[in-house]
Amino acid sequence: MYSFERPLDLLNQAKGKEVLVQLKNEKQFVGKLLAFDIHINIVLEGTKEVVNSEVRKNLGLTFVRGDTIIFISPSSIGEVKSGKD
Amino acid sequence: MYSFERPLDLLNQAKGKEVLVQLKNEKQFVGKLLAFDIHINIVLEGTKEVVNSEVRKNLGLTFVRGDTIIFISPSSIGEVKSGKD
Amino acid sequence: MYSFERPLDLLNQAKGKEVLVQLKNEKQFVGKLLAFDIHINIVLEGTKEVVNSEVRKNLGLTFVRGDTIIFISPSSIGEVKSGKD
Amino acid sequence: MYSFERPLDLLNQAKGKEVLVQLKNEKQFVGKLLAFDIHINIVLEGTKEVVNSEVRKNLGLTFVRGDTIIFISPSSIGEVKSGKD
Amino acid sequence: MYSFERPLDLLNQAKGKEVLVQLKNEKQFVGKLLAFDIHINIVLEGTKEVVNSEVRKNLGLTFVRGDTIIFISPSSIGEVKSGKD
Amino acid sequence: MYSFERPLDLLNQAKGKEVLVQLKNEKQFVGKLLAFDIHINIVLEGTKEVVNSEVRKNLGLTFVRGDTIIFISPSSIGEVKSGKD
Amino acid sequence: MYSFERPLDLLNQAKGKEVLVQLKNEKQFVGKLLAFDIHINIVLEGTKEVVNSEVRKNLGLTFVRGDTIIFISPSSIGEVKSGKD
Repeated sequence: MYSFERPLDLLNQAKGKEVLVQLKNEKQFVGKLLAFDIHINIVLEGTKEVVNSEVRKNLGLTFVRGDTIIFISPSSIGEVKSGKD
Repeated sequence: MYSFERPLDLLNQAKGKEVLVQLKNEKQFVGKLLAFDIHINIVLEGTKEVVNSEVRKNLGLTFVRGDTIIFISPSSIGEVKSGKD
Repeated sequence: MYSFERPLDLLNQAKGKEVLVQLKNEKQFVGKLLAFDIHINIVLEGTKEVVNSEVRKNLGLTFVRGDTIIFISPSSIGEVKSGKD
Repeated sequence: MYSFERPLDLLNQAKGKEVLVQLKNEKQFVGKLLAFDIHINIVLEGTKEVVNSEVRKNLGLTFVRGDTIIFISPSSIGEVKSGKD
Repeated sequence: MYSFERPLDLLNQAKGKEVLVQLKNEKQFVGKLLAFDIHINIVLEGTKEVVNSEVRKNLGLTFVRGDTIIFISPSSIGEVKSGKD
Repeated sequence: MYSFERPLDLLNQAKGKEVLVQLKNEKQFVGKLLAFDIHINIVLEGTKEVVNSEVRKNLGLTFVRGDTIIFISPSSIGEVKSGKD
Repeated sequence: MYSFERPLDLLNQAKGKEVLVQLKNEKQFVGKLLAFDIHINIVLEGTKEVVNSEVRKNLGLTFVRGDTIIFISPSSIGEVKSGKD
């Protein structure tokens, strides 16, 4: 089982890994998490806009404003370790 | 009867237990609460998106931004103890 | 007649009593108010989601984020004392 | 003519008097203003939900969260004194 | 030509004069501006709700919460002086 | 090429000049920018509400609340200098 | 691979380069990023409103309020370097 002191610890561990980002406007981004701050502003590398598991656009390096984000799921971490608890 | 000094005390007690999270966008998440902060940003483990009691997606470890959350219900605590007051 | 110095004084008096909570998403909760803070985050015990005076769901102990709340009406206080002024 | 230094001075004078409160969700409340704070959180006594000048619900003592309020009109003050300027 | 150091200087000059207030909910108020604060909370005297230049309701003295306001136009100042620049 | 240290430097240079202001409610204002503050509250002189390049209303001097603004484009600066870089 | 300490570092590197800006109102701007601040207020030079890869309007120098922005993608940086990681 994981133990994170604070929610941002998960984002810290996810740096350099691929994450799924759900936006409030119904769209999803997939990309490598490069940076985040306390407002949950993030930078993704190799950002792809995904609709129904299909890539619609390649946006490359992208700054996403935190207040437009619903959730961030570091898929690789989740998949690899979900059998451990 | 419970006595919590502050609302966040309930979230503190719910750490490591399964919670139901209602989002503003009509969706619900179920998962184990690993961390939270004063903005109600949370980390869930084994996150499942649930629609009408049916699991739609497995998201694994997920960071959820606090301002998208309506309520968090630590179901296990509620069910076990609801007969005590 | 009541005299409250500050609005939160009413919530303080309502602790341990049943309240009606109107959410911005058109839903209502009924439950016993256990805790609140300055953001109007609250914890309800024995929370029931009510639609047209009919109970739809039992949520048990629930943390409700303050910014989703329109009003909180401590019905028991209101009914018992409304004849006094 | 009135002279208020600050907008909250009007709410201070309206304490103990009946006010009309317009909410962002299109509903109106009528009740006696008992308390308010700088967030415009208020407590109303004998709160009635009014639609088209018709009382729909009696809510009694009610805490209303400030960010759901559009305006507060202390009708008695307005009517009594509107002929004076 | 006018020179205001800060936007609130216009509201200060408009005190005691009639203003048009556009709300985010599509409605307009006309009334005499009595007070304002840095949140743009205002108090209007002799407030009238106006739809298509037609008075719908007389609200008298009214406190309007700043975050519901789009613009405030002190019509008298604007009309009298618009020929000067 | 321009070099602004901070975004507000552009608004500072635009003082006294005509600007196009896009509001969140789909409307546009054209007027002379007289003042602004860090919340992007602004005062426009000779404000005109424009829909499809057509003037609908003359509002004169107007205070516009910053949180209703999407963008401010000082057209004269843009047009005169756009050939320089 | 890039390493940014903070999300704003990307915006700093993007200064003087063309960026794609997605607004919450479904519109997109393309322009040269001249300035930004911690609220993500930005100034774009040679701003073009783009709909479906087609230029609709030329806005020239434009101040865009940060809270209307979903993402900022410095396309040139993204394209040139996307083959490097």
